[in-house]
Parts: sequence; structure tokens; C-alpha cells
Amino acid sequence: MAKNFTSRKENYSQWYNELVIRADMAENSAVRGCMVIKPYGYAIWERMQANLDKMFKDTGHQNAYFPLFIPKSFFNREAAHVEGFAKECAVVTHYRLKNSKDGKDIIVDDDAKLEEELIVRPTSETIIWNTYKDWIQSYRDLPLLINQWANVVRWEMRTRLFLRTAEFLWQEGHTAHATKEEAIEETEKILHVYEEFAEKWMALPVLKGLKSPNERFAGAVETYCIEALMQDGKALQAGTSHFLGQNFARAFDVKFLSKENKLEYVWATSWGVSTRLMGALIMAHSDDKGLVLPPKLAPIQVAIVPIYKKNEQLEEITKKILPIKEALEKRGITVKYDDRDTQKPGWKFAEYEFKGIPVRLAIGPRDLENGTIEVARRDTLEKEILNITDIDIKVANLLDAIQSNLYEKALAFREENTFKVDTWSDFKKQIEKGGFILAHWDGTEETEQKIKEETKATIRTIPLNNTKEKGQCVFSGKDSNQRVVFARAY
Amino acid sequence: MAKNFTSRKENYSQWYNELVIRADMAENSAVRGCMVIKPYGYAIWERMQANLDKMFKDTGHQNAYFPLFIPKSFFNREAAHVEGFAKECAVVTHYRLKNSKDGKDIIVDDDAKLEEELIVRPTSETIIWNTYKDWIQSYRDLPLLINQWANVVRWEMRTRLFLRTAEFLWQEGHTAHATKEEAIEETEKILHVYEEFAEKWMALPVLKGLKSPNERFAGAVETYCIEALMQDGKALQAGTSHFLGQNFARAFDVKFLSKENKLEYVWATSWGVSTRLMGALIMAHSDDKGLVLPPKLAPIQVAIVPIYKKNEQLEEITKKILPIKEALEKRGITVKYDDRDTQKPGWKFAEYEFKGIPVRLAIGPRDLENGTIEVARRDTLEKEILNITDIDIKVANLLDAIQSNLYEKALAFREENTFKVDTWSDFKKQIEKGGFILAHWDGTEETEQKIKEETKATIRTIPLNNTKEKGQCVFSGKDSNQRVVFARAY
Repeated sequence: MAKNFTSRKENYSQWYNELVIRADMAENSAVRGCMVIKPYGYAIWERMQANLDKMFKDTGHQNAYFPLFIPKSFFNREAAHVEGFAKECAVVTHYRLKNSKDGKDIIVDDDAKLEEELIVRPTSETIIWNTYKDWIQSYRDLPLLINQWANVVRWEMRTRLFLRTAEFLWQEGHTAHATKEEAIEETEKILHVYEEFAEKWMALPVLKGLKSPNERFAGAVETYCIEALMQDGKALQAGTSHFLGQNFARAFDVKFLSKENKLEYVWATSWGVSTRLMGALIMAHSDDKGLVLPPKLAPIQVAIVPIYKKNEQLEEITKKILPIKEALEKRGITVKYDDRDTQKPGWKFAEYEFKGIPVRLAIGPRDLENGTIEVARRDTLEKEILNITDIDIKVANLLDAIQSNLYEKALAFREENTFKVDTWSDFKKQIEKGGFILAHWDGTEETEQKIKEETKATIRTIPLNNTKEKGQCVFSGKDSNQRVVFARAY
Repeated sequence: MAKNFTSRKENYSQWYNELVIRADMAENSAVRGCMVIKPYGYAIWERMQANLDKMFKDTGHQNAYFPLFIPKSFFNREAAHVEGFAKECAVVTHYRLKNSKDGKDIIVDDDAKLEEELIVRPTSETIIWNTYKDWIQSYRDLPLLINQWANVVRWEMRTRLFLRTAEFLWQEGHTAHATKEEAIEETEKILHVYEEFAEKWMALPVLKGLKSPNERFAGAVETYCIEALMQDGKALQAGTSHFLGQNFARAFDVKFLSKENKLEYVWATSWGVSTRLMGALIMAHSDDKGLVLPPKLAPIQVAIVPIYKKNEQLEEITKKILPIKEALEKRGITVKYDDRDTQKPGWKFAEYEFKGIPVRLAIGPRDLENGTIEVARRDTLEKEILNITDIDIKVANLLDAIQSNLYEKALAFREENTFKVDTWSDFKKQIEKGGFILAHWDGTEETEQKIKEETKATIRTIPLNNTKEKGQCVFSGKDSNQRVVFARAY
């Protein structure tokens, strides 16, 4: 499988593209910028969805569904939002096709032009807040804690599978609150959910913090984010949670009668993660032999390959394996026993290695005699011959160990690639090598912009609970009281 | 809650519309024909999804995701399909907006016109078969058993919440097979899955059969369906499963190398159910007091209401109830203990009745003394005072009984409203009263069309394993060898 597979060192970007395709995760479609998510990739996304959905519900949220289309005029209502979102998007102008006069073609029916164009949602704040207007009258209707799983479209010019596509899948939470404090608390609560999901399920350590004003969501008062570091030293924004203040309530005139019997604007948050997480997951752990998946999100956690020449041997192996498979499944472990006779064991080994199956077991006639089984782990590529007794317990423990190891490895990588930098020349040197740069910043948009122009580095985040420390801005030399995190980013 | 609520007898159609809105299931949005599915309605849809998804996976299917947009030219490829699907649909013509010259408005950017228009998918056969072309080379790649959960858009002129909306949610299965027999087997297998889901989960008896050629899916060789009867005597098509023959393989040139080393066109099926099922569920069981939900799909299966005057009483009740709630939850039952002090018990009773919660428990100080609890079931509106011992077992049994009762009631209704009709005058009389009419048909499209013009009745289905019986067509008097099912339909 891994033949002719580009290594990370050779060309990290090409390595990623090849990996996504060859591991059957996704591919480009006939529609510019839109991807097809293949069954193996989608199975991972389903696991992400299921776990996130549970976490949202455990924190009191409910799902709902809002329209795919947004009337164009809605984007005009929130001034900052229109700048950020209503530009590169898919515009529906007609609602009918008809046969061409010669009958050979179908063409757009000019008589079926919409009075007002509809925009395929790039995000749903506007249509949702227009709806909330009818749902919220009094403080008794608050908080509204709603999430939506949906597809959205942003007409990106340069697309990459999972990382940046015209259509992508995501969840978008939209909550409404009676007080500013409660809305901020919600924004931070969700940031914590995202952090926990990234670290515990994706084995991906993330920095948690605020965006600089320049990098805020269009229409937000404050944008919180989680940021991860990829193996090529570039940052990836893995999720955002926005405190929207009363901006959307003002734009859509959503007021409520408070306990004190006053009419007040409602406070809002919105937050989302998308199929971009798939890109992060793939890039964070995989290696030159293919995909590496954290056990908690792997569609198949254990693959078992029988090694045999004669059919009687296969029968004996199967007799031994089936109870083990069952015992593993009882522990909630997903197992594939691959007894296909159309492929050789070597082919199967390569296949499971490339697809990142966390644990592979192999068993042959000699193992049967000795009461042993070969156990291979994908993360370290180590193999061991183990006594088959209690193999289900051993495998369950091994899966836990792999999950921890992937996290620890990614954390160590991030720590090795996080640098305190105090001079502009060091900054320029370091940014070429990649990694997170902790540097002082004077807090102005102007400096941020100039740094970006000169180095392509952006402020990824201003960490929450950041250590206060006096210093001089790495670019302007002006006073600063904390370091912020710079990096080049996806 | 049920005040000013239209009864079924007064106006069935209005009853339905009011019910959907007042039970917080869905509402119309600011976008013509598109609905907002509210949290309570969506929670039911999620339960439908989860159970169907499990049934699909248990029968070997995997999920994937294909693009929202389809290039216009794709619809031209399959002749029958273009007639049926490429007409009333949302057309994307541009991919950018810009500020108007006066800066006051945003307008469509004429420079951003797409070379080829994109159609928002009304169904995905074309884009999926265009993709399958690359996925299928040999018999080893078959069968492909793929399902997609997605939103689709059909520009309906007259819309009704859940029953007919411009955008709706659905699943669409698209499978590829090496032989005709296997494809037909798949089509029928899925029909059986749909039947089982309708009957076991929705408590909705359905007829299983074929569509007449006239009512077939555009591009199908044979369309199978499940048909249900609503309380107003109108039929509702609840799901379809299509045997597509080699039509889409031919249109998109999808061939495979058979075991015999011959290049052959691939055989196809497609099948789907949608949020329309929500409409069927609501209409099938509900009554003049509001929603009635089958326990297996109810987001809250049991509501518990404490009756108290003093806080100490509430505390005692809560102490008694919490272990019961826990015992119910251990049995997988969803319980809401409603100890809010902002609403009176009477208000809560009315609320749970209107929202169709299958079982309501009420407990007051006297119950505490007597060791009793009041149990009310939504389907029959019966109340009983029961000994509280083993109440979890009693409630679990009651939920099962309600599930069965709803099915039996709907089945009895259908049987009472299914009529054998042999003359045209009887046919015309009966169709005004509603119900399924079993009548002989001469098998011609012409007759079918005329019956439809005169009575608005269509052939709902030709039941599988239909009894063969000689007779004369109810309209033309020509020979016929079986009765088919006529009705007016949603």
C-alpha cells in the first residue's frame, strides 16, 4: 500500500493529499471545490459527530434544523457580518429549468427568476436570529441552547480536501441568553467542550485562547478558539466559540422582557467545528506508512488476520478467534476478522497499516500450538508475540495505551516546537522553520498586519490565563505585557 | 393547551397544521417553502434516523457524503430522469456578491457567473453514479452498499410542513451490483426494512407493493413502495425503493469486469425516506387533544409531575421519585421529572397531553401516605391509581402496551377503511368518503390517467404477493387478473 507514497520530509503537502485519497477518506468531486467523503472517512466523522453530540446534549443543548437558504437582504442587517460572510458564496437566482427549443438541452427558465436571490448558508446566524425573534418574548424563554448539524458553502478559490472545501459539514451552535455574563459563560463552556473533545478523543493537544480583534468572527465581540500544531510546524484552528454580544439581537430586533419587566436585547453566542477536524486528525498523527488513528475514533480498532495454508487450518484458527472477537466486542471494541481468501496476509497487513487500524492481531498454526498470538500496534509499529490467554484484556489495555501515547507524542512535538522569541530577526528565522512562536506584541492591528505581510505569520491566539510578563513588541519595540502565539497557519 | 384547537372533524387539514405548530414540531421559515424543524420535532427525527441507520448498517450498508450541487449537464444524461427531476429546482448561477455602487446594498456580482449552472440536488443518482464510475472496475468492487443522510431541494409550489417542503431532510441509498437478481433482492430487502421500521417503530401499518409504471421514479425500471392510510382516509407514500436496472450505469458509463472477464454495465438501486415520515407519524396517531406519539420514538417517554403545596412536600416527593426515575432510566426509558415551580400541575398535564408524552405519572402527599401513584396513558387517556411498588416494571410494560395498541388501532382503522369496489359508480361514491379502494384495473396508463382526472384517485400500489383474481376493470370493463389499491393521496 505504501509504495510510491510521498514521505512527509519530501513534500508534506503532497503527503497529506496522497494520504487522504489512498486511505479512502475523501476525494474531489465533479463540482469545483466540493468533496466526496468516502465511507471510511465518513465513519470517522460519524464517530466525531456522535461524541460531540453527546457532549452538547450533556451540557443542555438540543438539536434543530434551519433552512439551507438565506434571503440576500438578511446579510445586510449586521454590518460586520456582511463584510465577512456575504461575499464568496453560492447564489440561487432561479427555481426552474426547461427544455431548450431544439429539445436537446435543458436551460435555465428565465421566467423563473427569484424576486430576491437566495444565498446558500455560509453560516446561519442571520436566519436563526430572524427565527429567534418569534421564539423569544420573556426571560422565561431563555436560555435557548440550540445546535444544528448541517452543510454550509463558502466559495473558496483554493481548496484542499477536508481543510478548505467549498461545501463542508459542520455543527453550529446558536444560543440566546438573558445576560452578558451567562453568554460569556456559555462561550467558554463550549470552548472547554471542544478542548476536551480534541484532547480526549482526537488525542490532539490544543491551545485555548482568544483571537486578536483582527481575526475575530465577523459580527463577534470576542472569538475564542482552540489551536493545534501540525507536524509541518503550521498551526490549525480546530474550533471557534464566539461571544456575539447583542449584535445579532440588534440586527434582528430580538428583545425580551426581563424579570425586572424591562425590554432588553438578547445576548448571543455561536460556535462550530467542521469536517476540517478530519484534516487535523489525519495530519496530527499519521506517518510515512499511512494513516494513524487514535483508537477512540477508529472505525475498526482491531483487525485480526489468520495465517494459513490449508482450509482445515483456517477452520481451527476461526474456532479459536471467534470467542476472542466476541470478548473484544463485549468490551465495546470494534473488530474485523479478515478471513477473506481473495487477499494474502501480507496484503492485509499493508492495508491495515495504511488505513491506521490501531491494533492488528495475526495468528497461524504455530501460534495455535504454542497458545500465542502476534500483536502489532500501529502507532509505534512494534510487534510482540503474546500468550493468547486474556488477550481481550491485553488488547483493551493496549488500545488505551495507544490513545495516551498519541496524545503524549503530539504534546511533546508541540512543546519541542514552541519557541520564545524576543527579536525580529529571530522571529523571521524561526517562522521559516515552523512552530508556535511566543512573542510580545504591542496590541495594535497595524503591527499584526505588518508581521503578517512580512512573514505570513498570524496571531493564532492569546491564551486564556496567559502569564502576564512585561516586554517589548517583537516588531515595533513598544511596551507589551504578555506574549501571544504566532504561527503560519492552515 | 388544547384550547381553540381545531378538531379533526371540523377541518382535518387545519387540525394538522395547528398541531405541528402548537406541538413545537416545526414552523415555516422566512424562505418560501423551507421549514424550521424545532427541537421537539427534531428530537423525533433523530430517533427515526438512529433506528433506520442501525437497520441499514445491520444489513451491510455504509454512510458516505456526496456534493450538495450537481452540474446541470448531469441531468441530461438519463432521459427519463431529466423529465422527472430537472425541472422545479434551485439553480445556482453565481458565486459572489459585492457592494452596490452607493454602498448601501449588496448585489450579485455579474463577473462571478458560473460557466455551468449548478443545481441544488433534488436527489443524487446522477452525481453518485458519476462518482461510482471511478470506484467500480471489477466484480471485486461490488456490491457497493452506500447510504447518505442529506438535505435535498425540490421547488414545490404548494408546501405543507413535513409533508411537502422545498427543502427536506432524507436518507438516500445508492447501491451497485453485479447482477440483476442481486439488485432486485436489495430493492426488496430495503422495502422490508422500511416496512419493519414503519410498523415496529412508528406503529404504522403499511401496504408493501409496486407502483404502476405511471407512478414510477424517473429513471427506475421498477418502484417499490410502502403506503399508509391517514385518519382522513387519504393515502401517504411513506418510502420508496427503486430497482434502476442498468439505466444510470449506461448514462454514466459504469462498467465492471465480471468473473467471466466480460465488461458489463452495473445494476443499480436507490431508496429513500424523508422528514415526510414525520408528517405520517403525526397524522396517523394524533387526536383532538394533540399529538400522540408511539413510545419507541417519543423523545420523552414518561413525564412525572409532583403535586404539592409546601416545599417540604416537594422534598418528600422528590426523595420518593428520584430512585424511580433512575430505575426507569436503567431500563432505557427517557424520563422528565418536572419539578418546576413556575407552572401549575394542571398546566403541565395539558402540556404533556398536547405534546403526546406516552405516560404521565402524578404523585401528591396522599399518594405518599398510601404508597400509590397516578398513571395516565396518552393513547386512551385512561388514568389509574397504582401501587408504587415495582412501578418501573409496570410503566415499562405499559409503554409496550401503548406501542402495540397504537399499531393495532391504526391497523383496525385501515381495515375498516379498505373497500372492495366493483362498479364505477361505487368507486366514485367511495372515493369521496376516503380509504383504500381495492378495484380491478385493466393495466393501461390511459385508464389510470382517466380515473385520476375524474376522481383524483391514483393507484397507490400493486401489493406484493397480491391474490390473483379474475375480474373486470372498474373503469373500462376490460379483463383484469388482480385488484390494485386506489386512493387519494398526500
